[in-house]
Amino acid sequence: MQHFISVHDLEQPLAMLYQAQKFKKDPLMARQFGQGKTLGLLFFNSSLRTRLSVQKAALNLGLSVMIINVNQDSWNLELEDGSIMNMDRAEHIKEAAAVIGSYCDFVGVRAFAKLENRAFDYQEVILQKFKQYAGVPILNLESSSLHPLQSFADWLTLEEHRPKHRPKIVVTWAPHPKALPQAVVNSFLEWTPLMNAEIVLTHPKGYELAPKFVQNCTIEYNQEKAFEGADFIYAKNWSSFKHYGQVLNQDASWRITTKKMQLTNQAKFMHCLPIRRNVIAEDAVLDSSYALHLQQATNRCPTAQAVLFQLLSNLKNNH
Amino acid sequence: MQHFISVHDLEQPLAMLYQAQKFKKDPLMARQFGQGKTLGLLFFNSSLRTRLSVQKAALNLGLSVMIINVNQDSWNLELEDGSIMNMDRAEHIKEAAAVIGSYCDFVGVRAFAKLENRAFDYQEVILQKFKQYAGVPILNLESSSLHPLQSFADWLTLEEHRPKHRPKIVVTWAPHPKALPQAVVNSFLEWTPLMNAEIVLTHPKGYELAPKFVQNCTIEYNQEKAFEGADFIYAKNWSSFKHYGQVLNQDASWRITTKKMQLTNQAKFMHCLPIRRNVIAEDAVLDSSYALHLQQATNRCPTAQAVLFQLLSNLKNNH
Amino acid sequence: MQHFISVHDLEQPLAMLYQAQKFKKDPLMARQFGQGKTLGLLFFNSSLRTRLSVQKAALNLGLSVMIINVNQDSWNLELEDGSIMNMDRAEHIKEAAAVIGSYCDFVGVRAFAKLENRAFDYQEVILQKFKQYAGVPILNLESSSLHPLQSFADWLTLEEHRPKHRPKIVVTWAPHPKALPQAVVNSFLEWTPLMNAEIVLTHPKGYELAPKFVQNCTIEYNQEKAFEGADFIYAKNWSSFKHYGQVLNQDASWRITTKKMQLTNQAKFMHCLPIRRNVIAEDAVLDSSYALHLQQATNRCPTAQAVLFQLLSNLKNNH
Repeated sequence: MQHFISVHDLEQPLAMLYQAQKFKKDPLMARQFGQGKTLGLLFFNSSLRTRLSVQKAALNLGLSVMIINVNQDSWNLELEDGSIMNMDRAEHIKEAAAVIGSYCDFVGVRAFAKLENRAFDYQEVILQKFKQYAGVPILNLESSSLHPLQSFADWLTLEEHRPKHRPKIVVTWAPHPKALPQAVVNSFLEWTPLMNAEIVLTHPKGYELAPKFVQNCTIEYNQEKAFEGADFIYAKNWSSFKHYGQVLNQDASWRITTKKMQLTNQAKFMHCLPIRRNVIAEDAVLDSSYALHLQQATNRCPTAQAVLFQLLSNLKNNH
Repeated sequence: MQHFISVHDLEQPLAMLYQAQKFKKDPLMARQFGQGKTLGLLFFNSSLRTRLSVQKAALNLGLSVMIINVNQDSWNLELEDGSIMNMDRAEHIKEAAAVIGSYCDFVGVRAFAKLENRAFDYQEVILQKFKQYAGVPILNLESSSLHPLQSFADWLTLEEHRPKHRPKIVVTWAPHPKALPQAVVNSFLEWTPLMNAEIVLTHPKGYELAPKFVQNCTIEYNQEKAFEGADFIYAKNWSSFKHYGQVLNQDASWRITTKKMQLTNQAKFMHCLPIRRNVIAEDAVLDSSYALHLQQATNRCPTAQAVLFQLLSNLKNNH
Repeated sequence: MQHFISVHDLEQPLAMLYQAQKFKKDPLMARQFGQGKTLGLLFFNSSLRTRLSVQKAALNLGLSVMIINVNQDSWNLELEDGSIMNMDRAEHIKEAAAVIGSYCDFVGVRAFAKLENRAFDYQEVILQKFKQYAGVPILNLESSSLHPLQSFADWLTLEEHRPKHRPKIVVTWAPHPKALPQAVVNSFLEWTPLMNAEIVLTHPKGYELAPKFVQNCTIEYNQEKAFEGADFIYAKNWSSFKHYGQVLNQDASWRITTKKMQLTNQAKFMHCLPIRRNVIAEDAVLDSSYALHLQQATNRCPTAQAVLFQLLSNLKNNH
């Protein structure tokens, strides 16, 4: 693993999971491992969990961390090759990536989908440019189409609550007032082959995801039917992929309620956070004993630590 | 002391003062004490002294520090229970507090009064929710109605300049163009029983504070009369508690001048900063040898360090 | 060297250069040297390279770093003495500098020219007030009229690519859509006496710099003529000093092109970054093998480290 952009960068996923479990038990077991190394964290967008969990994971490994909020601390970046930069963007990503890479041993980048141009978003321009020009390993802190650090934490949480050999996981769309990226759901689906589970995806018509992410799941447009027999309900809103970035509806009948949860096989409830209470899911669901959303957040730290540990190990082996 | 929200959380105030005095002499005397522990600092509002002094105090104890400027770095937080979150607030404080608490060993929170709804402000909703949901000790970095870290530094400064067994301290309102919270003055008054002093409070009519804070002081509406025989003048603006959050007047005759200081018993001048020069007090007062405002600021560091040391000691004893 | 405001603060420039070269080879050679000491970094303006390179240099020396983005984190500062502070500025620089100085062992300050009032900008009010009131060494992170950390990195880069005993360096104005300060070019010219080089300055009429900075260079208004025989082309935009802060023209004929570079003696291309591609210089120049702009950025770290090491050495010797 030179970079950590998606699940496909993992060479030994089960070993990584095991490593995360070890760090969860003993966060400081490798507290000298990163000494003298520096992780740069670049935020083009807001972040709470990712910001803190990756930072804490780095501290647990003895790494130094340098954080940049790109829009507040620095310059607007030009992303297009060959452009004549006479507008509001003062620096090209070519230079920014190379410069940041020269000060850091690895660089985490958060850059959400702008939801204006599907091809542009799904090309992952910012992360790809960083891979190309930074000269150091790149860590995906949520990109336009993927959020692998979240998915890894989701996987760890699922393993901690696996009720049977092959559980049924239902990934369900839920309503939201604003247009959100598809990154979390795409990424979760990309990680499901590791989970040894039956995966059912349910959403209203028009919210179909990119074909490459739905190859391992069944699509069921009837949410209630989908919920039957489920062991896990993973709720998430996303905007339309087909009518790109559009909120086609905010149909409250898709909200997750205790009543709907009763259709399941005593399923656990999952969400990546932040969650809008009583829009995505009822208070009663979030405040129940079967809600795992806070455990998912807690698991962001040991999983991020396992990823940093692996990137750092590779760095050391290559020198 | 599980939390540090107000003076009432101090079990042994004199021991804390003594500890602060020791840290002032030797800031690095416990530089390994916090190793492997992390302090989260959350700012809903601007901060200079608190931000730097608490951070420095933490560094002196070997703690790691993670800082969040909530409005810039993260998501707007919903504070109300049961609300349907379909507006601009993307995350509920229930989740935010729990998540942050899961990454940090203790959490400092700064959340000023909004000065719109008195009952809401004085309920200290944000701090109370953090106490309730974070699962770790909470440190008050200035809340709606209290600023105990400032008061502790004020106390240390007073002890360093105590001219007699029982000095007279005059807390005086001073004019200001904008509506300010009552937190600093409330908190100072709450700490005065520790100070072995006569306390006189002076302000224009209409600026009466909440009854529970003025139980240990005499109120004198004539500022000049109040100043007679004073050993300390503590100046501060606050907006009206009665006509909540209103600036009833900006009466320049309440400004602290050298002429007024001559009415006192060679009193020292105190202010918590930031201070508007020539509005709250004349340049000549602030630039005089009897002004202690910079010493108060300097004392923010050893006092914060004593508080962190105590919270950390309790954490260690509970594990 | 008590402060590092300009090249004139260097007592032994060659020893500093040598120190920077040593840190470039072995960044962690003095990793314990700064332990227990704290560097404060204050940004009144955006920063990428300076922010990260100084932070990294400090980490390499074992220093703690506390960062303030003044406009976002803290209070607007009043700069004028004697003003009645009843407007939007809540704190005077006198207090801010003293307070920050009390928490930090030294303080870096970035404060760009506002380009409204030439006398005000060139008095370097913010840095001078910090020198006056902070009570600790001040480090210039780019001020209104100077950027010595950039110039030091430029010098190191020049030494690494010196083609002959006394090369010809051409400093050329280049077009830009917005008004930029003169700090980088002023500072570079101030450092040129250390460079053992022939210095030619070329720019359109109206872009003459302050007389004190051009004493060691020849001015040639014909850019193509200036380029003849050059060993280094240092490109930079600046706004007019005479018609202060004005963009007199954006004459694209001053852009640096491969064709113009062919007039030189196989010159290396330099720029301080951020650079607007195809405005200041063509892509082909920036992507060429003779472009040194990324090496200049990389050299910001060891040179900053040499400066911090020297400030720290002086601090230690004075205690």
